Amino acid sequence: MNTMKAFQVTGFGGLDKLEYKTVELPSLEKDEVLVKIHATALNNSDIWMREGGYGTDRSSDAAAGWRREGIQFPRIPGSDIAGEIVKVGSEVEDKVLHKKVVLFPFQSSGKVGHEHMSEDIAYIGSEFDGGYAEYVIWKADLCYDAPLTNLSESAPIPVSGLTAWHMIKRANIQKGEMVLVNGATGGVGSFAVQIAANVFGAKVIALVRDQSLDKKMKELGAYKTVAYKSHQLVEDITKASDGQIDVVLDVVGDAMFSTSLAVLKKGGTFVTSGASSGVLTELDLRTLYLKHLNLLGSTLGTKEEFDDLLKAVQDGLVKPIIDKTFPLEKAKEAQSYFKESKQLGKVVLLP
Amino acid sequence: MNTMKAFQVTGFGGLDKLEYKTVELPSLEKDEVLVKIHATALNNSDIWMREGGYGTDRSSDAAAGWRREGIQFPRIPGSDIAGEIVKVGSEVEDKVLHKKVVLFPFQSSGKVGHEHMSEDIAYIGSEFDGGYAEYVIWKADLCYDAPLTNLSESAPIPVSGLTAWHMIKRANIQKGEMVLVNGATGGVGSFAVQIAANVFGAKVIALVRDQSLDKKMKELGAYKTVAYKSHQLVEDITKASDGQIDVVLDVVGDAMFSTSLAVLKKGGTFVTSGASSGVLTELDLRTLYLKHLNLLGSTLGTKEEFDDLLKAVQDGLVKPIIDKTFPLEKAKEAQSYFKESKQLGKVVLLP
Repeated sequence: MNTMKAFQVTGFGGLDKLEYKTVELPSLEKDEVLVKIHATALNNSDIWMREGGYGTDRSSDAAAGWRREGIQFPRIPGSDIAGEIVKVGSEVEDKVLHKKVVLFPFQSSGKVGHEHMSEDIAYIGSEFDGGYAEYVIWKADLCYDAPLTNLSESAPIPVSGLTAWHMIKRANIQKGEMVLVNGATGGVGSFAVQIAANVFGAKVIALVRDQSLDKKMKELGAYKTVAYKSHQLVEDITKASDGQIDVVLDVVGDAMFSTSLAVLKKGGTFVTSGASSGVLTELDLRTLYLKHLNLLGSTLGTKEEFDDLLKAVQDGLVKPIIDKTFPLEKAKEAQSYFKESKQLGKVVLLP
Repeated sequence: MNTMKAFQVTGFGGLDKLEYKTVELPSLEKDEVLVKIHATALNNSDIWMREGGYGTDRSSDAAAGWRREGIQFPRIPGSDIAGEIVKVGSEVEDKVLHKKVVLFPFQSSGKVGHEHMSEDIAYIGSEFDGGYAEYVIWKADLCYDAPLTNLSESAPIPVSGLTAWHMIKRANIQKGEMVLVNGATGGVGSFAVQIAANVFGAKVIALVRDQSLDKKMKELGAYKTVAYKSHQLVEDITKASDGQIDVVLDVVGDAMFSTSLAVLKKGGTFVTSGASSGVLTELDLRTLYLKHLNLLGSTLGTKEEFDDLLKAVQDGLVKPIIDKTFPLEKAKEAQSYFKESKQLGKVVLLP
């Protein structure tokens, strides 16, 4: 078993840069394990890594990975990974063999609680080969017991779940607060609705495509849903929330930015961890200062938060939502399907 | 003494809307005092109130006051006021007569520590008649002992000083942190440099027009100065700060926005309380979330902070800087001079 099937991104570009290949498995370092991948959930970061969609803070349209610099190609994408440990490095105890695990999605030198903000943060599927493959190598101590026996359901937890959890911690959401979740049907959004409502006790307004999703969103814990295709969206949200939004959790970006700031109460908090509709937006600085707003950026999260998240999933407070699965070899179709953004929950590859 | 000379703003518009008149003094309510004005410091808010420069969060170019709604004209502008109590309402003790005071600049129903974020906040010089006059009426319990015998120097404390203090509290600046102050020579900026450096122990990089201001800024407490007219401003700031800006304090707005975000370290904080160079700016949401930034809006401050500020002035840690004084009747010339933004410190009217 020295080779495997995998998709490699061979350079910044379109789907033609996502190439299905037979590649060699690298050897294990002493503190690493080999994980047979059962499921890899898709994220926008998979696609933006291929497209070089991150720009730099000096040039917004520069092709760059999420560290806002180049990527070492070829690179196997995929960051949200669940699987089984099938081989261990020389210093890893044998007892972890055959454990079902989810992979904490990055390495860094940062100390606990700040590891996600370290300058040297390196992300699986970007700085390391990731989950669009049959196998992946990862540090043993970054492999956590999968909280669900269904590994397809466990796969979205490391990136989508952790991202949502950290956004909520960033916003310091308190019990009873009114929280608007933009893009509530997406991967991060469907976690955010559940975590904010079921773990932190918030009243969640879920922003959805249309009211057909109302029942499902309420099952997840939402207090109310609002359809975003409205000519009076600010009024609709204000009415649903009785006028007071404490926190907006956003991964939508430009399309919802001015609406988000308009519905927030004075002193309210907007947290972003993504911008699928558009990365450049107009900010009225008067709105920021006259309303005493907090605009907070958030990416991934900490190991402590990951522990808390895994426990919440085990306890049944948070349930990863799967929209559709694809076999590994259909990764291109999966990315195309994902980009249409019509799904409720995650798209998952099954190697 | 039933009349006084005063400037009234008679509607949103140019300097022709600032009219010098003889107006009647209103009668005192039982909890109010009459203050003979010795000095009123100018602020951008005086000018924006006349110009209707605040827009609304739905229409950025709508003519509006700072509450983002209409102003009841005619209105006497001026918010940064120092003077002497010369008459008291029926329930105010006589012993306050002839006290030299500075006026806490707003009223609101908000509880202590949140009074500046109350929905019903009403600002002197906007919702109440203000300081472009010989006299002003204000609540007795919002008149604080002037910390300096020179009332011209005391005048800028309530708005400019409090604004700077609250920005620094918002940013939670810690000893030894590297703080960039944009517009360091302005009214808020020259307070911010001193408060951040001398009260909170920060290393302050003062952004100035040119290096001729270096000596003066270092006297105020700045660690280094950087001239903003540079083709490589990000590099200049990065070099001066050894690459790590923890906090940016800004009242400049659009012209410094992208530079501010570029020089901040991961997890850094940008605080704005004004936007003299431009209120609309482009925000790259990726920069916000990938750098885990905090963009915080700030307006005015709390009574507790005002107490702390007055003490810091008394203790000599913070000294209001006066650029130029004008007699009251030259208020139009004073506003024109102020708008040129060439000054170091405050412009003050002397009725």
